[in-house]
Amino acid sequence: MHVMHFDCVVCNGTVLTMNPDFEIIEDGVVCWKNGRIERVEKRRREKGAYSARETVDAGGGLVMPGLINTHTHLPMSLFRGLADDMPLSEWLNGHIFPAEARYINACSICTGVRLSLLEMLLSGTTTCCDGYFLEDAAASAVMESGMRAVLGQGVIDLPAPGVPEPAGNVSAAGDFVSRWKNASDLITPSIFCHSPYTCSEKTLLQAKRAAAEAGVPFQIHVAETRGEYEQIRAATGESPVQFLDRLGVLDEKTIAAHAVWVDAEDIEILASRKVGISHNPESNMKLASGTAPVPDFLRAGIAVGLGTDGCASNNNQDMFAEMDSAAKLHKVAAADPTAASARQVLCMATIEGARVLGLQHRIGSIEVGKQADLIVLDTHQPHLTPMYHPESHLVYAARGADVRDVFIRGCRRVNNCIVTGMDAQQIMADAAALGRRIGERN
Amino acid sequence: MHVMHFDCVVCNGTVLTMNPDFEIIEDGVVCWKNGRIERVEKRRREKGAYSARETVDAGGGLVMPGLINTHTHLPMSLFRGLADDMPLSEWLNGHIFPAEARYINACSICTGVRLSLLEMLLSGTTTCCDGYFLEDAAASAVMESGMRAVLGQGVIDLPAPGVPEPAGNVSAAGDFVSRWKNASDLITPSIFCHSPYTCSEKTLLQAKRAAAEAGVPFQIHVAETRGEYEQIRAATGESPVQFLDRLGVLDEKTIAAHAVWVDAEDIEILASRKVGISHNPESNMKLASGTAPVPDFLRAGIAVGLGTDGCASNNNQDMFAEMDSAAKLHKVAAADPTAASARQVLCMATIEGARVLGLQHRIGSIEVGKQADLIVLDTHQPHLTPMYHPESHLVYAARGADVRDVFIRGCRRVNNCIVTGMDAQQIMADAAALGRRIGERN
Repeated sequence: MHVMHFDCVVCNGTVLTMNPDFEIIEDGVVCWKNGRIERVEKRRREKGAYSARETVDAGGGLVMPGLINTHTHLPMSLFRGLADDMPLSEWLNGHIFPAEARYINACSICTGVRLSLLEMLLSGTTTCCDGYFLEDAAASAVMESGMRAVLGQGVIDLPAPGVPEPAGNVSAAGDFVSRWKNASDLITPSIFCHSPYTCSEKTLLQAKRAAAEAGVPFQIHVAETRGEYEQIRAATGESPVQFLDRLGVLDEKTIAAHAVWVDAEDIEILASRKVGISHNPESNMKLASGTAPVPDFLRAGIAVGLGTDGCASNNNQDMFAEMDSAAKLHKVAAADPTAASARQVLCMATIEGARVLGLQHRIGSIEVGKQADLIVLDTHQPHLTPMYHPESHLVYAARGADVRDVFIRGCRRVNNCIVTGMDAQQIMADAAALGRRIGERN
Repeated sequence: MHVMHFDCVVCNGTVLTMNPDFEIIEDGVVCWKNGRIERVEKRRREKGAYSARETVDAGGGLVMPGLINTHTHLPMSLFRGLADDMPLSEWLNGHIFPAEARYINACSICTGVRLSLLEMLLSGTTTCCDGYFLEDAAASAVMESGMRAVLGQGVIDLPAPGVPEPAGNVSAAGDFVSRWKNASDLITPSIFCHSPYTCSEKTLLQAKRAAAEAGVPFQIHVAETRGEYEQIRAATGESPVQFLDRLGVLDEKTIAAHAVWVDAEDIEILASRKVGISHNPESNMKLASGTAPVPDFLRAGIAVGLGTDGCASNNNQDMFAEMDSAAKLHKVAAADPTAASARQVLCMATIEGARVLGLQHRIGSIEVGKQADLIVLDTHQPHLTPMYHPESHLVYAARGADVRDVFIRGCRRVNNCIVTGMDAQQIMADAAALGRRIGERN
């Protein structure tokens, strides 16, 4: 027998592969070397079948692909719970925008990003897609943490943190992409145009061109609110999706966040352009933006990922909670208990999320040849007992706190519910201190 | 200075009292003796101000009233995740009813109830309102655990566990109430009529009369689904609420679960009869039953509590998740981000839930004279940092796993995330073994 020497073997768990057959392997084994998965199978009983530097006992729990959060604004963890339960304009103009103007700088961004990364890692997210400003600071903090990320430098036709002069917004984003293009295979730089109502046609075109030339993802908020829909309709006679399509910025490298206010024609456009959609049910519910027609997206074959949105509008970044909300929201919205099944929602949080980010060949499932981004859940708990169907439990009963271990590219980033390589106490102390200052003025 | 000797003092926490002024006391102290709260105040600095047998350091966390789950079916934890994502009739007739017929007996009920109690205690619930069959077994298990509960023996005009002959259903319920009426001040027996479509007019009248004569709560599922609404409308020309009101079974001792399919006239009836409503947003979403008009209930002055419903339709009993879903569902349903505020939802889970159960003079808030039912949350975690508004964090960011300690009538039932006085390992092993048998046939 050929014995292979692995870096790590995870055993004694039920492996939810999320491969094309949705295979679930009881008493499964996942082995990797140099961050790449080399074997996924039912445990062989021969002595010495698995020789590895490290063996991780999953304790009879679940082993699954790391979760992929396709839309967030990492530094906004600093504003978690600062202002809730108020009309959108009061929330944005009275609280969030002033707090951003006053407190966001390269230093506070590092604190906010680190706080978000701690929260995400502890709840099983291994890849996130961020869009914000001063993205170099975010990228440095992400690099430190070992998280995998798509990071979008923000473009908006208003003065923004780090870009006081809007005229320089696209070139700032292009420069960011150049700096990070080949910095790490964990980081994919990107350009994030805020929205069709805060960026001019010229800005949208230039930003998309810069992203296309660099071959990186182009992120944009699209059709999030009724107000946005009506504004674009009044200005152009088109829906936000039609408007962006006319400009030519919709293609398979475009990540559209929200897509709530879309009709059948818009869905056809999004499908034919192969746009990926980031669905953010908890943010859309909390801000009363509306319900995105996700079952229609899925029927049209559109790649749909899940996102938490920033902490100011959710107010956490727990992808298990997001899965649960997605599955339940679409059932009640469609008056159909078969809508948004557990499996469909798990796909959104893993392999389809990877597709949205253009990373489906590297992550999103536990398959030979993919990166070893995976998590182990402790299922030996009252709220996960008994266990009939792992997919159902993951969506309807589990929560972020059930995540015990997290591996990204084969490196252990969470060990028995403790984040490794980050000083959680210091980060929380820094964030709390900043929060006290922010709270005084609010 | 008069020094009082307490049984226990909780200090070094922020106390969310949920009193009529919604007072939040930073660096607050809660003291009790013989299970009764004797003092709630800002910590006094004098030496010897608090003399107690036990001092609990809340570690800078939040101290709040124990959560009140106003609607559940405790033994159904055994069917958690057995069948999901299917049409209601297939779910009920193809899976849940057969599993109940085959596996529910006094012994399995004990296991299922204990499993639910473990889950509830660990996630901060100190009072639950149950409705099921073989309720004596449930009551014994609840007594053992130290949980506070309203327990309703089920009445249905079909053969049921423990009541094979429907003709005896009301007398069985009456006997249950007699046996438990004065057994413990933690237990309130009750009669639970399944619904207006599974109980005849005669059964409903007799059951309500038996409950009224004993002075105990009368529980009933009301207007849960469109199907029920149409069936009652076709048979009587009335809505389910109108029908029950004509029978005279609606009064301040009636707990109406769900109340999804109600109109303005129904709401007027419910308000004038002082019926308490148990709102179950996650169950209503998952089963695609619909969205109860909770903002209208609140405007009409109706007492609204929160419930998780049984684990077959949720699939957990985490009241923090339920609060989050309630707040978000009503915002998106009403297209109004101010609907179902964090404070309103916290009221539903505490003092208003107590009102629904008729226990508002004893529990639901941290006030002198009330029972010491309270919980301590560990807020020193990334997803609860920074902290601007405790009410917002509890609804939008916290989760059951953040509960560190639980006290019921002054007794500690959870100590640093471990349930005291119950053998969690054995209960999970029993439930898992039963689950394996149930799963084989499903």
